Amino acid sequence: MHPSYVRQYNATRIFHALRANPGITKRGLTDLTGCDKSTVSAILRAFEDIGFVESDAAQETGKRGRPSANYRLSADNGLLIGVHLEFEQMAIVAASIDGTPIRKWSQPLPTDPAALATDLRHAIGALCHEISRSQDEIRAIGITLPGLVESSGGLAHAPSLDWYETDIGNLLRDQIDAPVYIDNDTNAAAMAEYLFGQCGQLTDFVMIDGGLGLGGGIFLDGRPYRGASGFGGELGHIKVVPDGRICGCGAQGCLSAYIAAPALLAAAQRSLRVRNVEELIRAAKDGAPPILDLFEDSGRHLGRALSDIVNIFNPSAIVLGGIVGRIWPYAEITARKELAKLAMRAPLQNTQILVSDISAAETPVGAVALALEGFTSLDGQKPGPW
Amino acid sequence: MHPSYVRQYNATRIFHALRANPGITKRGLTDLTGCDKSTVSAILRAFEDIGFVESDAAQETGKRGRPSANYRLSADNGLLIGVHLEFEQMAIVAASIDGTPIRKWSQPLPTDPAALATDLRHAIGALCHEISRSQDEIRAIGITLPGLVESSGGLAHAPSLDWYETDIGNLLRDQIDAPVYIDNDTNAAAMAEYLFGQCGQLTDFVMIDGGLGLGGGIFLDGRPYRGASGFGGELGHIKVVPDGRICGCGAQGCLSAYIAAPALLAAAQRSLRVRNVEELIRAAKDGAPPILDLFEDSGRHLGRALSDIVNIFNPSAIVLGGIVGRIWPYAEITARKELAKLAMRAPLQNTQILVSDISAAETPVGAVALALEGFTSLDGQKPGPW
Repeated sequence: MHPSYVRQYNATRIFHALRANPGITKRGLTDLTGCDKSTVSAILRAFEDIGFVESDAAQETGKRGRPSANYRLSADNGLLIGVHLEFEQMAIVAASIDGTPIRKWSQPLPTDPAALATDLRHAIGALCHEISRSQDEIRAIGITLPGLVESSGGLAHAPSLDWYETDIGNLLRDQIDAPVYIDNDTNAAAMAEYLFGQCGQLTDFVMIDGGLGLGGGIFLDGRPYRGASGFGGELGHIKVVPDGRICGCGAQGCLSAYIAAPALLAAAQRSLRVRNVEELIRAAKDGAPPILDLFEDSGRHLGRALSDIVNIFNPSAIVLGGIVGRIWPYAEITARKELAKLAMRAPLQNTQILVSDISAAETPVGAVALALEGFTSLDGQKPGPW
Repeated sequence: MHPSYVRQYNATRIFHALRANPGITKRGLTDLTGCDKSTVSAILRAFEDIGFVESDAAQETGKRGRPSANYRLSADNGLLIGVHLEFEQMAIVAASIDGTPIRKWSQPLPTDPAALATDLRHAIGALCHEISRSQDEIRAIGITLPGLVESSGGLAHAPSLDWYETDIGNLLRDQIDAPVYIDNDTNAAAMAEYLFGQCGQLTDFVMIDGGLGLGGGIFLDGRPYRGASGFGGELGHIKVVPDGRICGCGAQGCLSAYIAAPALLAAAQRSLRVRNVEELIRAAKDGAPPILDLFEDSGRHLGRALSDIVNIFNPSAIVLGGIVGRIWPYAEITARKELAKLAMRAPLQNTQILVSDISAAETPVGAVALALEGFTSLDGQKPGPW
């Protein structure tokens, strides 16, 4: 193990300790990270020198390093950019280096992926201008999309965007002058739950998130799991009905074919006039019997998939986002009945089911989480505190 | 990160490099591990001093440390013990510290788990005596059983042994004077595939192994995954038929309820006189039509579960052991048809399906692999080269 890796590892832990505990003292940092005092001091000094960290030490005593001084990540130095590609649109979020969103911007998604780089370059430029920050401050860009993303090169398959075998990494490299991290949107959503959400203390959880399709994200032993080639975590395509409904992925009987938004809307429209997810949820709130029946069925399908997940992963938590989180209040009873019937008791007892706050928020932060993860990742290449 | 942890980490990698490459030179070790020359030399010297490593350096030149000297783990110093608990019997294996089996011993499993410690103590004593080695040489004992094992304390649920909530760790601690590692037998089988089998170069694979029941083992990002509380990896209990056959786990429609040995035998016995797995496989070899039909059905059930596994994990390989490996030649065609129909193309293309050699061998080595894993684990407690 190379000394520079060890230093990077310590710097990363100190960064995240600062992020999660603004105002922490040096003593607090040594307690939290297990690093010794001199390591903490050296890394804080390096972070201060590049403007990532500020403290009240200098102003109060004239010399930095007072033991009880309070340290925090700077909101004024360094930017992370998150780009969420969705059906027909993209959202771009500028955030400070601790991941706090500063400004969100939405615009149409170009139909031709080749136009993405130019569109993004202009949008990021305009966004930085709007918040009066320099593009030089950008430390990392996270890009998420609904589909499969190969870990090595950013080759993406996103049927709902009508993008196939698109090498996004390569498209952007020439035009964007910052490290770019690309991933499936639900992997990123799971990372956001870990960094900003309800799962900060959990080492093992999975996320099911959905809209047009149903995605999954897996977080195991304290880190995201992406599979041998980046395609792992497709929890929405667990089979729940043999020879069942055709799914967007081409197979039959996937969970996604039953509880993704289009499937639910199509089923609801057989008996009621609902045009979109908002109207669908409103009908359930109003107690419309066909919708309540539909969501009870959804609970049975969801419960079957959740029981496989409990038996396979023994997770601390399963986080439900998007449409799955929205229907959960109406699907929970039947889902829990299936779970009690089908999952093993020992792991089931240890599994919480949570509804994501983050996925319901106005500003999407999955891609920001991906940028933050990439920015603080241990690649063994970066110098000391990056 | 503490310096002693770094030293332990390097020692572990050098140990495994020696294990996988007997006769390797110092130069080879620096190349393989990335450690610098002085680190390699210091750790080799420490290993030699405790008798773990031998080389041809001293005998040929009178001084150790000649650059082209060949190093290997010693077969004469240090022992690992593997204990396989099965239905009505246990197998105990003594192995050298590189995991090579020296002698195997079988005896009945005590019906009362409280008797296990005494039985094991006697058996291990007699086994060491038989191979003329001292019990003081035992570095680690691995114990595997068919059931759920809680990671923290060794609390086990093994229905086929009729053991429930049995704190095996605690039972043994008083009577056995070596570190004891306890795990589910298929988790250990996956570790054996990594250490001794076909998966030494793979970072992501899963194992399905079965006899009386069907177990799973998961190996992700280069290490075993055991779940939040040790219950993870129950791949045999993926649901393949809604409201299907009752399984030993209490649920309905699990893969195990269709292709574990008792299920296959019961189904076969409806049309043919077969008394055990050997006769069942023999009948398939002889081309008995009802057995070939049965195994084609098994392939369909297996293929459904495998498609979930491919979509969820995107593994490099799925290893089939025990009864699943035995029926694979007759189940492969239908299983692959289901896979093509139900799994996503991108991850499926990257998944090999392998039949385990190890699980078919006379001497079980899963528990030895568990002992070796425990012995070389990074617990941050051990001194330099342990």
